[in-house]
Amino acid sequence: MMHTSELQWTAQEQSIAKAAFDRAYQREIQALVQLVRDQAGSIAGTDDVWRLHDFLSARRHELDGKYDERESALLFVFADLLKAGWLSLDDLNGLDALKLSKITALTRLM
Amino acid sequence: MMHTSELQWTAQEQSIAKAAFDRAYQREIQALVQLVRDQAGSIAGTDDVWRLHDFLSARRHELDGKYDERESALLFVFADLLKAGWLSLDDLNGLDALKLSKITALTRLM
Repeated sequence: MMHTSELQWTAQEQSIAKAAFDRAYQREIQALVQLVRDQAGSIAGTDDVWRLHDFLSARRHELDGKYDERESALLFVFADLLKAGWLSLDDLNGLDALKLSKITALTRLM
Repeated sequence: MMHTSELQWTAQEQSIAKAAFDRAYQREIQALVQLVRDQAGSIAGTDDVWRLHDFLSARRHELDGKYDERESALLFVFADLLKAGWLSLDDLNGLDALKLSKITALTRLM
């Protein structure tokens, strides 16, 4: 069990974290937008339109849960986003070495 | 208060009602499909994609409530669909005169 709540975040690190967080969210949303635009062209009937709605409901629920801005959750959120490819380590450049090593360790556990 | 539950529906009338009901639903869904296809092209960001989701949630909820197949609700459903233009009186051709007059009376009250 990692005691992530004991980590201190400097103002600069908070700013880096916020920027990385927002960047990942925007990237993921843009991919979703592209998917919806692609799918919309093939919507033809009742099933298709409700399938699109189900899909958006599930993605929204997932994204609401995943993008947890609490400091105690940030290492896990970043590990998840690195693993999924929405962030690279470059996006986290400027966080202290301990946080970065915890994040990469978490990534390997996922 | 109309005692619509006391009306008898013959097998032929049930069949006419079912066909009209399904036709109206298909027309309304096709209009929705067209709207979604038109809107999808202008989806660009976070707000747009969740706005589309909100819109589909509201429409689905509305349609689920509106298309009530219970016999006791049918006159109201048909009046509503006539009023909104999803059905014409031609679609209800074959229902007995009493039901048709109740439906048109309801339409005027809406």
